[in-house]
Amino acid sequence: MSTFGPEYVRAIAPYQAGKPIAEVAREFGLDEASIVKLASNENPFGVPESSKAAMAKAASELGRYPDANGFELKAALSARYDVPADWITLGNGSNDILEIAAHAFVQKGEAVVYAQYSFAVYALATQGVGGRAIVVPAVNYGHDLAAMAAAIDADTRLVYVANPNNPTGTFIGADEIEAFLQKVPANVIVVLDEAYNEYLAPEHQFESASWVRKYPNLVVSRTFSKAYGLAGLRVGFAIAQPEVTDLMNRIRQPFNVNSLAQAAAIAALNDKAFLAKGAENNAAGYQQLVAAFEELGLEYVPSFGNFVLVRVGSDDGAGARVNLALLKQGVIVRPVAAYGLPQWLRISIGLPQENATFVEALKKALA
Amino acid sequence: MSTFGPEYVRAIAPYQAGKPIAEVAREFGLDEASIVKLASNENPFGVPESSKAAMAKAASELGRYPDANGFELKAALSARYDVPADWITLGNGSNDILEIAAHAFVQKGEAVVYAQYSFAVYALATQGVGGRAIVVPAVNYGHDLAAMAAAIDADTRLVYVANPNNPTGTFIGADEIEAFLQKVPANVIVVLDEAYNEYLAPEHQFESASWVRKYPNLVVSRTFSKAYGLAGLRVGFAIAQPEVTDLMNRIRQPFNVNSLAQAAAIAALNDKAFLAKGAENNAAGYQQLVAAFEELGLEYVPSFGNFVLVRVGSDDGAGARVNLALLKQGVIVRPVAAYGLPQWLRISIGLPQENATFVEALKKALA
Repeated sequence: MSTFGPEYVRAIAPYQAGKPIAEVAREFGLDEASIVKLASNENPFGVPESSKAAMAKAASELGRYPDANGFELKAALSARYDVPADWITLGNGSNDILEIAAHAFVQKGEAVVYAQYSFAVYALATQGVGGRAIVVPAVNYGHDLAAMAAAIDADTRLVYVANPNNPTGTFIGADEIEAFLQKVPANVIVVLDEAYNEYLAPEHQFESASWVRKYPNLVVSRTFSKAYGLAGLRVGFAIAQPEVTDLMNRIRQPFNVNSLAQAAAIAALNDKAFLAKGAENNAAGYQQLVAAFEELGLEYVPSFGNFVLVRVGSDDGAGARVNLALLKQGVIVRPVAAYGLPQWLRISIGLPQENATFVEALKKALA
Repeated sequence: MSTFGPEYVRAIAPYQAGKPIAEVAREFGLDEASIVKLASNENPFGVPESSKAAMAKAASELGRYPDANGFELKAALSARYDVPADWITLGNGSNDILEIAAHAFVQKGEAVVYAQYSFAVYALATQGVGGRAIVVPAVNYGHDLAAMAAAIDADTRLVYVANPNNPTGTFIGADEIEAFLQKVPANVIVVLDEAYNEYLAPEHQFESASWVRKYPNLVVSRTFSKAYGLAGLRVGFAIAQPEVTDLMNRIRQPFNVNSLAQAAAIAALNDKAFLAKGAENNAAGYQQLVAAFEELGLEYVPSFGNFVLVRVGSDDGAGARVNLALLKQGVIVRPVAAYGLPQWLRISIGLPQENATFVEALKKALA
């Protein structure tokens, strides 16, 4: 038993990241180039060319600290989302935003509400401040917003809502979200985590940033790690009213977003062609995967993100067993037993050939 | 008064970063290319060529998340410092290490000891967890380790020691540090912040990483932002025994260090020529600056870092006044009134021509 640190820190189970390609190559004696990674909901097209060009221009000044205030990136986000720059908090990925929110708004013993089967970082961020987690059972693998609103107690300071949700891919429509926001007490912060927003079909898109004007307790969290293809660079952001933004910026590390990420994000933000190409590939890849699941008679959760949750067996060893069989074939996907879903795997949608390689490997793994 | 967040968060005064070149250009109507920035203790040579080559190789995989475990960077650090990889914590700059230590080891109401005139982030990290700061008066602008040891009370969980210290440049020899470590209770973590270690002359160098073997409560913190020239990329690290390292990694965000920073740091770590060139320039630049200060009759604190603290007047408006006069001439240095040093400015050591430009501008500012 450690003699250092609060009990709540010692109780944290660290985040389990997807296995990197190099690690799988080392572990299974495979050639890195032959490995297909559909494990971390990354963009299969990688970094947009527009971002690469912006990074090349920014590279000469990398001996300097980043702009701690992110002047140019905030200006770009301000124009894109029609909010003042002082409504924006920059994060080292949206992971940082989620952590900052816990640190800024929750102290030991206070409660945080989030859904069963929602993003693992909500639990980590809550534990990291000694918060009390109120985990609300999912319905059909998605958030039960009515139950979440009812679960908010006098000690609750923060609610995390993921939309679409990772790792299940479920989606909540605008009307239902807004009805929820109206029910949440004014002193409880709602972090609406929209990491996968850009993958939504046009009919499901809505401008949550505009809700921030109505709800002083709302924090909208977005990332450049998914549709924008900048996972390796680390940049996310939050939009909230100035009072909340100011508190988050007191907790934010001043140089949390590196210079290249700031430059790359500005370029990506306005690269509509790259987003369109990604959305088109994602929609086609989703059909490719679910057609295979239906052919194989596998249950899956209809997904609004760039991944699909699929049940690969009816025993609690199924996820680990099939995952290992896939790894041996050089296909990395995400086991989700740590989410309480040991019969399931989460598959990120890749390029058509990557999806096909996965489907073939899955057939062998199940055989 | 905010309705959100703990009182200790609302009380935080955010970090004041150095003004970026672009901001000074905007504010004073200057040409960016004409501006000399000696404000943030950056490396005037910028990023090593070895790091640039490593980044170019790593750039193709930036759509992927970084390696959350930093396998290759930890392997390089492990070889360099002769400690196992599980003794290493990676940080988004050493700022992140300093914050992680506070989160991992201190809870609300517990105490943190650090010195007057030491790095501003110690106060921010302490406040961010609701800790109680015990600020020990400096002696000759440096740490009074005997008084710091005596100040540790029953509630103290963490001590920050900066060596060399920023912003004053003072240095504590190995014997004195080790005598201090022997006095600190075994349940109190000591973070030895050695951000400027690589600038020490050979006769002052010692391998603090080897102390970690003797002291289970010691955390040695280092950065790639100073001598290694990677400030814009954000990478630092800590060395500590596995129990302490494990706790810090529970608080660390899994993707806190971006992919390019990991690649660049590995290259820089072994670029002895780059470090040697930087140390040589720094030693010569130090002489250039202090010769000017002596000529001008200005008091300065003898420095062991890549910066010098100089008293530019005997009234408490002096620092701000001279700083403004320098800014108007396109020279950015660091006012340190927020450190309780309103008569002083901190000057980073630049290239010979940058130092000369500063000296000329200082003469005009003082005239």
